[in-house]
Amino acid sequence: MKLYMTESSGNAYKVRVLASLLKVPYDSVEVDWDGKEHKSPAFTKMNPRGQVPVMEIDGKVVWDSTAHLIYLARKHGGEKWFPSDPLAMAEVAQWLALAQNEIFFGLQWARGVKKGFRGGSVEEYQGYGRKGLDVLTWRLKDNEWLALGRPTIADIACYPYVKRSPEAGVPLDPYPAVKAWLVRCEALPGWVKLD
Amino acid sequence: MKLYMTESSGNAYKVRVLASLLKVPYDSVEVDWDGKEHKSPAFTKMNPRGQVPVMEIDGKVVWDSTAHLIYLARKHGGEKWFPSDPLAMAEVAQWLALAQNEIFFGLQWARGVKKGFRGGSVEEYQGYGRKGLDVLTWRLKDNEWLALGRPTIADIACYPYVKRSPEAGVPLDPYPAVKAWLVRCEALPGWVKLD
Repeated sequence: MKLYMTESSGNAYKVRVLASLLKVPYDSVEVDWDGKEHKSPAFTKMNPRGQVPVMEIDGKVVWDSTAHLIYLARKHGGEKWFPSDPLAMAEVAQWLALAQNEIFFGLQWARGVKKGFRGGSVEEYQGYGRKGLDVLTWRLKDNEWLALGRPTIADIACYPYVKRSPEAGVPLDPYPAVKAWLVRCEALPGWVKLD
Repeated sequence: MKLYMTESSGNAYKVRVLASLLKVPYDSVEVDWDGKEHKSPAFTKMNPRGQVPVMEIDGKVVWDSTAHLIYLARKHGGEKWFPSDPLAMAEVAQWLALAQNEIFFGLQWARGVKKGFRGGSVEEYQGYGRKGLDVLTWRLKDNEWLALGRPTIADIACYPYVKRSPEAGVPLDPYPAVKAWLVRCEALPGWVKLD
């Protein structure tokens, strides 16, 4: 298994965390982001979205970090991280959706504007991101984990851009249940620190 | 199984299509969108995002249309629509991600601005939506379906806001492979027409 990634990508980070938790070895290929390698013809032939991470598995290319989490969890995670029961799977999937929607398009895009690598309205993205933090709070005020009462790929998918929320201009102090959950994630054996 | 929905919701439509294709019966509960029932305390207790669709299954509530597609496909679709093999599952999931990202935040949000039910930059959303259409074209110029060489929940998830793309100010004439794929979807036995 080969993972095309950058050290700074929060989406690639999700995959690195789960591979570490599951002790799955892989070859890591650092993509030259500053040199725009992810927009090169060789790269977009693999991933037409021109984004990391990309995974190569048995000669087959799969893009999108959520797809990677699903693959690793089903292939190497037994019933723990993304279980086979349809209803349990759906319960995890609803949080994967939050990670891809309010958290990514809210918190990560606001961070992107702050860091100067994207345009758009930072206030709009921050507002959308705060909705995501409210939904996390709704769950985490009475629960330790997002789904199924245990750590799953839902937690991994939501973690990085919530952790980086202060860089988006959205401090986490008004969200103590969310902050406590970040600490619980970080205490999982094998967790990888987000730089 | 109970589905809280509105007739006009493209996300609820995805669930209605798959239930029809799989001949799964369900009780449909029309939510009063104009009366903002989806923002009422009774509704947000079920779904803190305040959105349709919401599904109630054996007394358990699950929100998010992608989660619903995964549930229905794994529960009632055998190996066809969202197979259990991890790599095949990931191949479908990468297109579910496109539906939730470029297609939703591009095409649907641009449509939302055009229809007056959301703010933001229509040009920005349209541009992002066109990236989604380019990715669909990348795949569909040489393939009939998005994943696995057959219809899957990937196709259902991507369909509605691509179909409605002209309402977002993004005509589909420059995307003939995408238009041909929409027609193929509509020819599936049991397909539900999008109004």
